[in-house]
Amino acid sequence: MKEKFAKESHTVMNELVLPNDTNTFGNLMGGRLLYWMDICAAMAAQKHSNNPVVTVSVDNVSFKRSIGLGEVVTIEAQVTRAFSTSMEVRMEIFAQNLPEGTKIKSNEAYYTFVAIDENGAPKQVPSLHPQTELERKLYDEALRRRELRLLMAGKLKHENATAIKDLFTLFTHQQ
Amino acid sequence: MKEKFAKESHTVMNELVLPNDTNTFGNLMGGRLLYWMDICAAMAAQKHSNNPVVTVSVDNVSFKRSIGLGEVVTIEAQVTRAFSTSMEVRMEIFAQNLPEGTKIKSNEAYYTFVAIDENGAPKQVPSLHPQTELERKLYDEALRRRELRLLMAGKLKHENATAIKDLFTLFTHQQ
Amino acid sequence: MKEKFAKESHTVMNELVLPNDTNTFGNLMGGRLLYWMDICAAMAAQKHSNNPVVTVSVDNVSFKRSIGLGEVVTIEAQVTRAFSTSMEVRMEIFAQNLPEGTKIKSNEAYYTFVAIDENGAPKQVPSLHPQTELERKLYDEALRRRELRLLMAGKLKHENATAIKDLFTLFTHQQ
Amino acid sequence: MKEKFAKESHTVMNELVLPNDTNTFGNLMGGRLLYWMDICAAMAAQKHSNNPVVTVSVDNVSFKRSIGLGEVVTIEAQVTRAFSTSMEVRMEIFAQNLPEGTKIKSNEAYYTFVAIDENGAPKQVPSLHPQTELERKLYDEALRRRELRLLMAGKLKHENATAIKDLFTLFTHQQ
Amino acid sequence: MKEKFAKESHTVMNELVLPNDTNTFGNLMGGRLLYWMDICAAMAAQKHSNNPVVTVSVDNVSFKRSIGLGEVVTIEAQVTRAFSTSMEVRMEIFAQNLPEGTKIKSNEAYYTFVAIDENGAPKQVPSLHPQTELERKLYDEALRRRELRLLMAGKLKHENATAIKDLFTLFTHQQ
Amino acid sequence: MKEKFAKESHTVMNELVLPNDTNTFGNLMGGRLLYWMDICAAMAAQKHSNNPVVTVSVDNVSFKRSIGLGEVVTIEAQVTRAFSTSMEVRMEIFAQNLPEGTKIKSNEAYYTFVAIDENGAPKQVPSLHPQTELERKLYDEALRRRELRLLMAGKLKHENATAIKDLFTLFTHQQ
Repeated sequence: MKEKFAKESHTVMNELVLPNDTNTFGNLMGGRLLYWMDICAAMAAQKHSNNPVVTVSVDNVSFKRSIGLGEVVTIEAQVTRAFSTSMEVRMEIFAQNLPEGTKIKSNEAYYTFVAIDENGAPKQVPSLHPQTELERKLYDEALRRRELRLLMAGKLKHENATAIKDLFTLFTHQQ
Repeated sequence: MKEKFAKESHTVMNELVLPNDTNTFGNLMGGRLLYWMDICAAMAAQKHSNNPVVTVSVDNVSFKRSIGLGEVVTIEAQVTRAFSTSMEVRMEIFAQNLPEGTKIKSNEAYYTFVAIDENGAPKQVPSLHPQTELERKLYDEALRRRELRLLMAGKLKHENATAIKDLFTLFTHQQ
Repeated sequence: MKEKFAKESHTVMNELVLPNDTNTFGNLMGGRLLYWMDICAAMAAQKHSNNPVVTVSVDNVSFKRSIGLGEVVTIEAQVTRAFSTSMEVRMEIFAQNLPEGTKIKSNEAYYTFVAIDENGAPKQVPSLHPQTELERKLYDEALRRRELRLLMAGKLKHENATAIKDLFTLFTHQQ
Repeated sequence: MKEKFAKESHTVMNELVLPNDTNTFGNLMGGRLLYWMDICAAMAAQKHSNNPVVTVSVDNVSFKRSIGLGEVVTIEAQVTRAFSTSMEVRMEIFAQNLPEGTKIKSNEAYYTFVAIDENGAPKQVPSLHPQTELERKLYDEALRRRELRLLMAGKLKHENATAIKDLFTLFTHQQ
Repeated sequence: MKEKFAKESHTVMNELVLPNDTNTFGNLMGGRLLYWMDICAAMAAQKHSNNPVVTVSVDNVSFKRSIGLGEVVTIEAQVTRAFSTSMEVRMEIFAQNLPEGTKIKSNEAYYTFVAIDENGAPKQVPSLHPQTELERKLYDEALRRRELRLLMAGKLKHENATAIKDLFTLFTHQQ
Repeated sequence: MKEKFAKESHTVMNELVLPNDTNTFGNLMGGRLLYWMDICAAMAAQKHSNNPVVTVSVDNVSFKRSIGLGEVVTIEAQVTRAFSTSMEVRMEIFAQNLPEGTKIKSNEAYYTFVAIDENGAPKQVPSLHPQTELERKLYDEALRRRELRLLMAGKLKHENATAIKDLFTLFTHQQ
């Protein structure tokens, strides 16, 4: 299976915030953004794997800024690393007020997907070859995020979390 | 008012075809695509004008290819020319089957928007400065498309349609 | 195949403009109207052909009047002419403000549909027999609109556009 | 306040049954039909009163026939009688299978609406003048349906239900 | 077939009133509530029958209170009685204003469902065993509501409506 | 400000999986579940604070089981702890197949909300008084989850993360 470049999965989604997407303050509801992010990230994972995918996890997402009715949400998604049958997708989310010409970064997030075959079983995906410095940094860190994810889901024992062990050690030494 | 470049209005929208977007054959309904195109083109017009806009016309659109459930519709929109208070937006529409890795151009279309102020009155927009050869070609042709649009809407008399007069002459000479 | 009357395909649709159908000015978005028009016209084409249909083209549509939240959009659709496997549908669109008791014609439009069989192949439809004077006028003009449509879609060479040749000649003579 | 004719409120709605309107059998969900009926009947009540209206009651509705995906639901609504500030609207619902050319009456229903002013208080509406024999019959029966409605809502004591008293007497004598 | 308890079908649904659920007064449209009620009651009927169900009738529903944008609609549904292949579901509807901490009962309603097999034919459901005093009262009254429903739908002759005969007699004696 | 009990915020939401909620495998899309969870958790936070709220963060969510078309998603939400102006809400998500009578726990998740006043500024909320053993355990752990959340969002320096310091120490000693 031929490896692929990160940029081959690059996907951009622009969504206009309509009345039904807003809370009583006229701002985008967090849940609607999480929904759009899932669709955008799934497209990126499908581009990388050339296969249907299902969401397996969402990392911690924090919402730093309210986005108003009539603004445009721009989501840029790209696969950072593939692990056998799963792929981590990183997203940057921006809020654009087009009449004012502003584009402000709202937040970042990581969703993970698994490629599945027609029987719903996980299926091998191409490995990812990072090219730019940022892609390589995200590729390296993806291992730590994955271990943290598996630890939190109770699917990995701490003694086997080798990638984040050093990180923990570092933290405790600092204290 | 400072003129702007065509690429400043460039907008990409990717939409996943969901069950409710499809007809009984499982293919995207034309009306849903026209709806997405309107939102995408309006974003491009808002980027150019930095102002809210309303749709004033849709040019002839022909649908050349059915797009299936689960495929991704990619719309790329860019302003081609501005006329005092209105802007012509050109779109290229692609159908992507991500599992199969195909991206096929489906069609092209032109929508026109007017910028309006808080009272709903038309409002001046920046003129557009085309840069690439394609942008200049589209800029030049925009005048003819505009005259055809106004003729069809009964807002322009034929004797004043100077830009397409030569075109007609050419056609009749050919016969 | 028995020919059918125009009025047999007559279809009326009334839609209430809800919050999610509106832009930031509280007016109906053009794209939502194009979506409703597609569904209404498809019903008319299905009535004529007694067959599933798909949209093949939308003629130039111009939006002449904003329609507000809470108003009712009335679309009246009727097939004007059938061409082997395709049908032209004409629509008149009205905006009704029921509390004020007003009904204003907003615009007219033409959509074209093709009847398709279970394999997606075009399928013969009944020819249309116009009865009233208006139906006959629309029937005659349909040929010219069709040629213009095919010319614009690049599916017809100008020298074969016999129906609009005279129209062009007339235009150039006037100049 | 000038009285109005029943036919002035006549309203037709045609809705295409889309995937999200259906249950796991691929048939229209009852709740979606009740929703469309509410919007259609509200339009008829607004036409009669030239005023915004709110739903106050729905009479017994029975669903006699399943309506499939891709079929068209046709709702015809007309005010039968006005009572000071309220209006009874009768609807006939049809299921059309356009490819098969069938139109079958599915059921009938009565919804009641009240006209309200900008403060939400009930507001006088024009009285209705029935013209046809059917309109007069529905107008007469409306009184009985109204008493039954008020009895069921606990807003009318039985001894004051003069219109249906005879009906009950008749029933008991028959036994 | 083992009989079931009423509480086994108890179902709670909480829905937030979003902009597209409201009329021009910013209040929940009656039709949207009827739609949610249908889904909630269908869940209760499915819990009782462990089978897919379809709506067969809606009893008289009266709307006593407007529910505003941003409020929460709480629907509590429970089967009251089963009749061979059909089930009556009773619902209590509440409007909650969470910021103000209020929860007001809006109305009650009865929907009836039939369990159907894979061919769409009615299918036997377990009988219901009422336990509490309220459940027994609702169970007993269900017979009268059913006869009234069948009378109104023209599916029962009055002389066979034995359960409500006494009720009518009582009414007429009172006069 | 009077403290409140955890159970006062308890909220149950039942949602039927409809066609438009599913991916091409006919299973619920992750993003739709995240959207429903946001609405359900927001209701719980509003019940606790009696105030409008906005989502500020979503903790790691992992999806362990696919949920099919026609199944019912049950979300149970309850506030675990309040911190000045923010509240942590814990949810348990279940997938019910009503015809089969199964109810399987799908996953758990934590969302955090902030109460805001009419100017959008954070606003004090009542503190929470845990009663049951589980509520006390979740209350205690909430402090650690909060520090982890703030660390990940870059809003807390590690040396100030006193609650999880011991946790890290423990992990490193184990190695």
